[in-house]
Order: sequence, then C-alpha cells, then structure tokens
Amino acid sequence: MRILSNKIKDYIGKEIEVAGWVHKIRKLGGITFIIIRDRNGFVQAVVDKETKNIKIQDLKPESVVKITGKLSKDKRAPGGAELRISKIEILSKVKEDIPIEISKKDLGVNLDTLLDYRPITLRNQKQKTIFKISAKVCNVFQEFFDKNDFVEIHTPKIVSQGAEGGAQLFPVKYFGKKAFLTQSPQFYKQIMVGIYERVFEIAPVYRAEEHNTRRHLNEYISLDIEMGFIKNMKDIMEILTEFLKFALPKIKKDCKEELDILGVKIPTIPKEIPKLKLTEAQKILEKEYKERCLGAPDLDPKQEKLISEYADKKFKTKFVFITHYPSKKRPFYVMDDPNDSKYTESFDLIFDYEIVTGGQRIHQYQEYLEKMKRFNLNPKDFDFYLSAFKYGMPPHGGFAIGLERLVAKLLDLDNIREACLFPRDITRLIP
Amino acid sequence: MRILSNKIKDYIGKEIEVAGWVHKIRKLGGITFIIIRDRNGFVQAVVDKETKNIKIQDLKPESVVKITGKLSKDKRAPGGAELRISKIEILSKVKEDIPIEISKKDLGVNLDTLLDYRPITLRNQKQKTIFKISAKVCNVFQEFFDKNDFVEIHTPKIVSQGAEGGAQLFPVKYFGKKAFLTQSPQFYKQIMVGIYERVFEIAPVYRAEEHNTRRHLNEYISLDIEMGFIKNMKDIMEILTEFLKFALPKIKKDCKEELDILGVKIPTIPKEIPKLKLTEAQKILEKEYKERCLGAPDLDPKQEKLISEYADKKFKTKFVFITHYPSKKRPFYVMDDPNDSKYTESFDLIFDYEIVTGGQRIHQYQEYLEKMKRFNLNPKDFDFYLSAFKYGMPPHGGFAIGLERLVAKLLDLDNIREACLFPRDITRLIP
Repeated sequence: MRILSNKIKDYIGKEIEVAGWVHKIRKLGGITFIIIRDRNGFVQAVVDKETKNIKIQDLKPESVVKITGKLSKDKRAPGGAELRISKIEILSKVKEDIPIEISKKDLGVNLDTLLDYRPITLRNQKQKTIFKISAKVCNVFQEFFDKNDFVEIHTPKIVSQGAEGGAQLFPVKYFGKKAFLTQSPQFYKQIMVGIYERVFEIAPVYRAEEHNTRRHLNEYISLDIEMGFIKNMKDIMEILTEFLKFALPKIKKDCKEELDILGVKIPTIPKEIPKLKLTEAQKILEKEYKERCLGAPDLDPKQEKLISEYADKKFKTKFVFITHYPSKKRPFYVMDDPNDSKYTESFDLIFDYEIVTGGQRIHQYQEYLEKMKRFNLNPKDFDFYLSAFKYGMPPHGGFAIGLERLVAKLLDLDNIREACLFPRDITRLIP
Repeated sequence: MRILSNKIKDYIGKEIEVAGWVHKIRKLGGITFIIIRDRNGFVQAVVDKETKNIKIQDLKPESVVKITGKLSKDKRAPGGAELRISKIEILSKVKEDIPIEISKKDLGVNLDTLLDYRPITLRNQKQKTIFKISAKVCNVFQEFFDKNDFVEIHTPKIVSQGAEGGAQLFPVKYFGKKAFLTQSPQFYKQIMVGIYERVFEIAPVYRAEEHNTRRHLNEYISLDIEMGFIKNMKDIMEILTEFLKFALPKIKKDCKEELDILGVKIPTIPKEIPKLKLTEAQKILEKEYKERCLGAPDLDPKQEKLISEYADKKFKTKFVFITHYPSKKRPFYVMDDPNDSKYTESFDLIFDYEIVTGGQRIHQYQEYLEKMKRFNLNPKDFDFYLSAFKYGMPPHGGFAIGLERLVAKLLDLDNIREACLFPRDITRLIP
C-alpha cells in the first residue's frame, strides 16, 4: 500500500511503498539522493553502495515512480525519515528534459513563460500553493453563506443580453440566435431572491474588455451573493464584513503551511470597516495627495491605493468602503440614493484596489421602467427579468467578489494572472 | 426584528414582525386569512372584526409585506400559531395579477409554460424544493471529495479546441481568434493531476448537440473528478461508489422535508454495484428482452432502462456499471483495454439511464501519439495538453456526473429541464 509523504514518520523501521514524481536527483560521493514529490510533500530516498544494484539511470526530474524501501530515522530529511530503496518502478518516463527547473523555490521566469508552460510551472511548490489557497477561499465562501441560509444556485452563462452594458460582451453562435457570454449573474441572482430570499453562486463570468491590465481577466470566477428583506445597503456591507471576518482568520489557520511557503500574512479585518462617500474620498485625495479628481465618476487605480493608504493612516486599516457612486456610471438596476438621485446606493470595498462591488438594487417595477428610460434601454429586451418585479420583490442587494483578484491581493501577487490556473486575456487563449 | 416562519413557535403570546410574500388570501365569513410565505415556510395571519381597520384591499397574491401582530397558539395553522395583524406594510406591490396560481401544490402547467414563466413558476413550493436538493448534491460532492484530499479547481470555459470531438462545439468570437465553449474540463483536469494528483470541479459545460431530448441540455453543470496513482479503472468505480454511499443517505437525511414535499424516496446503493461488460449486457438484452443490439457501440435509452431492470431482478439494485465500450466510440484520451484494444477501460453508471461516465486515461506520451494517429488528430493541435504527458504523469482516471441529470433521476422528474433553473436548449435562450 502506498504511504503518503506526510505519513512516513509513522513507519520508521518498516518497509514501505511511496509513489510520486522525481523532484530532484543529487549525487554526493557514491550516494544518490532522490527526492520524491507527492500530493502532500516530499520523501528522501537513497541509493548507496549497498543498494547500487538499483538501476536509476532512466530517472529524470518529473519521472513518475513507485519506490519500495526501508525507512530509517533521519532528522535532516523531509518528514524526519529516509527511504533506502530496495525496488524502483518507473510508472511514467520523461520524454524530454524538462525546460524549466521546477524544484527551485522561486521559478525565476517571466510572466509569459510562467503562463505558456502552465502544465509544468504549476508543479512548482509556490505556484501549486497559490491555488490551494484559492480553493480555500471558495470553500469558506460557500461555508459562510450556506450557514447563513443562502442557497447555492447555478445560472446560465449563455445569455440573450448583458447586465452591465453592451460593449463588453463575447458573442456566441447559438443555434442561429444572437447570444452572449454572461458578464454577471446579476439578473438571475435577483430573480432568485424572489424564490429563496438569499442566494449565492460561484461561477465564471466574461468581460470582453479590450485592455490588458494587471488587474483584469477576460474570464474570471465571480463570488456572487444577493439577499432580500434588507433595510438598506448597509445590510449588504455588514454581511460582507461578517464574511471577511469569518473567512480571513479561517484561511490564516487552515492554510498556515501554505502561507508560510509563500511568506505571506493575511490581513485582519477591523471591527468596523470605515466608509467614505466617493465625493468625500475625492476631497481627501485633493487635500492630502493633491489628486485632481473631484467630479470624476470613479477612483483610478492610483487613487484607490492612496485612499487605502489614507485609511491605514487614519483608521488603522487598509480596508475602506467607498460609497455613493454616480447614477450615470452604475448599471441601471442599482438603486438611487433617496436623498440625491445623482448618486446611488452602491459601494466598492477597497484594499489597495477594488476587491468587491455591491449595493442595493431597485425592487419596484415602476422604478425600473423609469430608470431604463433614463438609460435609453428598451424594457421589452428585459422582459423575463422585469417579470420578477411585476409580482412582488422585497428590498434587496448583493455584491460580487472577483476570486482571482481577491487571491492576488491576499497573496500579494503582482499580476492577477498569477492567481488564475489558465488565464484568458486579449492575447491568451492557450493553454 | 423580523421573525422567520420556522421560528414563530418560540414567540407565542408575543407581538412579532414577519415579512414575506402573500401566498394566499382566503375569506371566510368576516375573517380574512392571509398566508405569508418566507424563505423557510408559511405564517398564517388574520384580519377579523376586531382588526378590520387594517387595510388589505391592495393585497394580491405575491405582494411583499411586513406584518406586525400578536401570535396566538393555533394547531391548525402552519407552525402551530396564528398572527393577528395589528399593522401591515406593503414593501412591494403587484403590478398585474399573477398569470399562474403558484400556491397550488402542483402547478399543472405544461413544460413550456413552466419554463417560459420561470421567474414566477419557481416560486411554487415544489419547484423551489427541486433546487434546494440540487444545491445539496453539489454540497455533498464538494464535502466528500474535499475530505478525500481532492483539490477544487476552476478551469477555463473558453477553449481553443474540444475534448470529445469537434461537431458539438459552440463557437465564441474571442478577440479575432477561433475559440469555443468547453464540452468538458477533461484536458485541464488531467493536467491538474500532474499538480495535485486529485482534483474536482463543479462548473458548466456546453454541448452544441442539435437534438432536443428529455435527457439533454446544451448547457449543464458537470461534477468532475480526476485522480492519479490508480491501479486500474476499478479504483475510479470504487471512489464513485463510495461517493454515492456517502451522498445519498446524507441527502435523504438533510433533505427529509424537501423529499417529503416532492413525495420522493432516495434509492439505496448496494454494497457493491454490479458490473457488466457492454458485450455481456448486450447478450443479456438479446436473450432476455429480444433486443437486437450485439455489436452496437452503446446502449440506447430503451436498452439502458432494460439492463437496469435486469440488474434489479438479478442483483436487487437498479444501479449497474456497464464497462468496456469500444475504442472507436470513446474519446482518444481513454485507455484501451490491455487485453483487447478494440475495447476501452471506460464505464457508464446506469440507473434507468446513464448518470455517470468515467474511466482510465492514457498517461504515456507515446501512447497518446499512437492513439491520435488512429483518430486522425494532429498532436500539434493539442500541444499544451500533451506537454503534461511529456514530463511524467501517473496512471489516472476520473468521471463526470451531469448534475441536472442526476437530480432529475433522484427526484423522478420527467424531463431534465425541470432540474435546471434556466435551461438552454436548441429553442430556448430566454429566460
């Protein structure tokens, strides 16, 4: 029976079988050390003068092997034990020498190489670790919202129209019909508030933006929630804060080993995340940082970083909610501020940059018609969506987190592509 | 503070607030009963001669209301208590009378109506229940494979080529490049075996099949796993069996209420699921049921149903593995039977019809080249996929479950579309 690397310490003195990839081969005098990598870690195996009848000349880094041998205590070896090889079987040979030395701590390749050779570079320990943490983020998202009575849903990704505006859609040939890839599950998650009150979804979304930045992907995983019977948008900011308070300590605890490998510290969430209206934030940016931005519909990346710095100085946290973005620049379904319809009941959560967008939505049919008129949209095109509002929808709101963006931020990665297994961008469709 | 319907029994004798949809209005003499629906169930509220100053003439089925009132014990009412209304606030009016009476136990509409009016028909209790069970299926899938050291992954859905053959792909306009929606995460989940040994994914897949059947969707959720260091395909059938043994009793227990609403019993998994080679199954079908099928590459729906019946008769279970499908008819990555290369190390799990497909995959680079030659495929088109196999891949295999198909089967639904929130088929792109 195969023993995994993290269990070998229970088998010292015994003959065991391990299996995995040849991570490294090192010759020292007459002794050959072979480091085997399996899903949980590493095992050090040796061939010395007493076992030199073992044929290892066909072994190369990344060969897949099954090794039988006797395990003896060795403090210097990973797992505290060393395997003296008595039998070795190659399960899969290496066809060519591997072009990248993946056993190095840091790969030391540029981004294009990293991504072009993804099936190989992901075998590097640091690369591999990133996506264990990414899996954990999804896991705690699901756990938290499941606990809080949210129902997980799966909504279609081939849709008849966009939720956020038409320019950024990928067309799909769908049995002769005009169809697109969805930008957001927005319409569907709102409809589903009419069924379950509280829903969440973890699924890909698509943005056909033609620019290439360090923070954008054309296909990414969106962590979406939508929730009914709210008093106002503060309820949404509150459940987001509660989620982060639940998630970050859990990631810190459950991924201790992974975070150590990456040398990263998970930030803490303050008791309350400070809130600034966009115009307040802009005044601060003008006054404190000489940024000319008053009247702009949004913060640019530099301004997001500065306001996060300001929050750190003033409130001892880099997390800051920016609220009340202008109506003109937010999608039609966003509710206007009841005190000033130039602004909306919407927010971004900034942590160096925007990691979450959310807000309250319109829930009255009549208000939709009025807002759509202002936006020059034809209600006929949104028939099925609006039908939900004809028949009673509670006050509601929600938010969306970009998984890769959050992970890139938590792990302090330079480019969002490093937090995506197989990124899609304007130049990249393969691998 | 709002009290949810399933908690009202703790507040008898108290003044409370509830909120939800007007599910039903019933007048009996001078008394009006208003059944309120919230995410957890129903509350019966009353207006009688003592509270007749409460204005309810604007209420219609599906109006969203907030009601304050005093709760008194009443065995006949849902939750064992009745709310005497002291205040009612309409949060959202109904614009038009609802075209379908959703408070009925069975909607009694045809499939097209059911799906055309999805934002409304999903509010029906039975419809709503289906997708709670669907969410549970995903949840237990994740729980089981997480427990068993599988890492959850997210792979791209926009791809450069198909995994199962070219005819059934939806083309996407991707920045001037030739791209498609993925049929399966196959290539990516195999690559990821090279990283984590064991991976799973819950994500949409796309089949551009032009036929319209009760068992097919053009967009569905695929529950995928892939696992390395297997001895042979039996290891895959075994972990699938273990999953079902874990999942079905858990669904039965956790969704007791939902299953009662639907009037459905979850089947039990036998200690061992019987296995028949395709040719054995075909011989049985010829002998026992006079089906002329020997030599066919697959079973047709009728034959699947019959072999499931046979298994029930012979092995006391309707679950049966059919193995060793012909090489010609399975995708190129499927491993051939080492004893007879006309057949493959592949299986379907049948329960009245096919609910899972899986098998062992080729793991040697050279074998891929040979098989691709036989399939008239150009290895150059699969460069990134094959690169994983150049550098050592363990023996591995996996399976895929169609979520909607499994749910339709478990809940004995007539058409797979009933197990999909917003189905996509050859005629349906909306809602």
